[in-house]
Amino acid sequence: MSRRLVGVWSLAVVFFFSTVGASHCSIKGLPLIRNISELPQDNYGRPGLSHITLVGSVMHGMKEVEVWLQTFAPGSKTPIHRHSCEEVFVVLKGSGTLYLASNSHPKYPGNPQELPIFTNSTFHIPTNDAHQVWNTGESEDLQVLVIISRPPVKVFIYDDWLMPHTAARLKYPYYWDEECHQTTVKDEL
Amino acid sequence: MSRRLVGVWSLAVVFFFSTVGASHCSIKGLPLIRNISELPQDNYGRPGLSHITLVGSVMHGMKEVEVWLQTFAPGSKTPIHRHSCEEVFVVLKGSGTLYLASNSHPKYPGNPQELPIFTNSTFHIPTNDAHQVWNTGESEDLQVLVIISRPPVKVFIYDDWLMPHTAARLKYPYYWDEECHQTTVKDEL
Repeated sequence: MSRRLVGVWSLAVVFFFSTVGASHCSIKGLPLIRNISELPQDNYGRPGLSHITLVGSVMHGMKEVEVWLQTFAPGSKTPIHRHSCEEVFVVLKGSGTLYLASNSHPKYPGNPQELPIFTNSTFHIPTNDAHQVWNTGESEDLQVLVIISRPPVKVFIYDDWLMPHTAARLKYPYYWDEECHQTTVKDEL
Repeated sequence: MSRRLVGVWSLAVVFFFSTVGASHCSIKGLPLIRNISELPQDNYGRPGLSHITLVGSVMHGMKEVEVWLQTFAPGSKTPIHRHSCEEVFVVLKGSGTLYLASNSHPKYPGNPQELPIFTNSTFHIPTNDAHQVWNTGESEDLQVLVIISRPPVKVFIYDDWLMPHTAARLKYPYYWDEECHQTTVKDEL
């Protein structure tokens, strides 16, 4: 009896992942109205992160905007990075710190501003400014909606704020675009 | 005594509106991190609507994306309209109906699909499809984050689903862009 149950569950799991796999990299078969709690989420190798692409370029064929829902456990953070697209944050819950090197040294980001972010706040990142979002709180998750233009995102990553701009490493496709990037065709790339 | 209070309040109101006016049409003087509950909101002549531009083209100089927070009282709705930009909705609370004429007649929108939308759902509007968002609930507000590309938005409005596409009226600048549109210079328009 218990073995039969295991068998049924194995089939169910295989079916579940094949279904998720099919819809994960294509809009085909996805309902127009999607329940966010049923969308794929992952930490993409970054401890403390939950990332969900609500609608995106690689998965859904968007050409001009992409929207993510990200949750940062206390202490977790983005890398220090820059990109040439526009980016908007809406803080749904929690608090943290935006580190932003806006008046940066021409050759490297330099010492960033430290700006408190909080529930029900919004901000955008000036194009190409190096920045980092960090849940500097001690107990509460930080949850943000992130909007970018010109998807899929092309990210340059810094090891620290003194790393030369020219040494920042391009990560493309970005972690959450990797799996589906190879299975889709982008006419403008 | 009561007259003095009125005087003080009048001054305060004038100061408030002059401050809001200054920041309303320019990013100058605005903090990088903005408290959404302190941003200007209005119904722009549409009963039951609360619209807040979280970050936008006309006000904040965004060139590629714009983000709105909109709340629809029970029974309130958008006009039937279309636009050539991409648009994404994230339903923060409440429920309602998306009317979408996706497989439309070539000459007019035609009978729309009726799609239930609900808290924690997301959807995007195919470019140029006529659509309408309606809080069809009886008691609860419908609150949505709306993301558009290529701001400021250029909206074509229909009187009904059988109105020819060619008869739809262009409303530009849109209601919430009107006040500031004349005070800003857009290099691409």
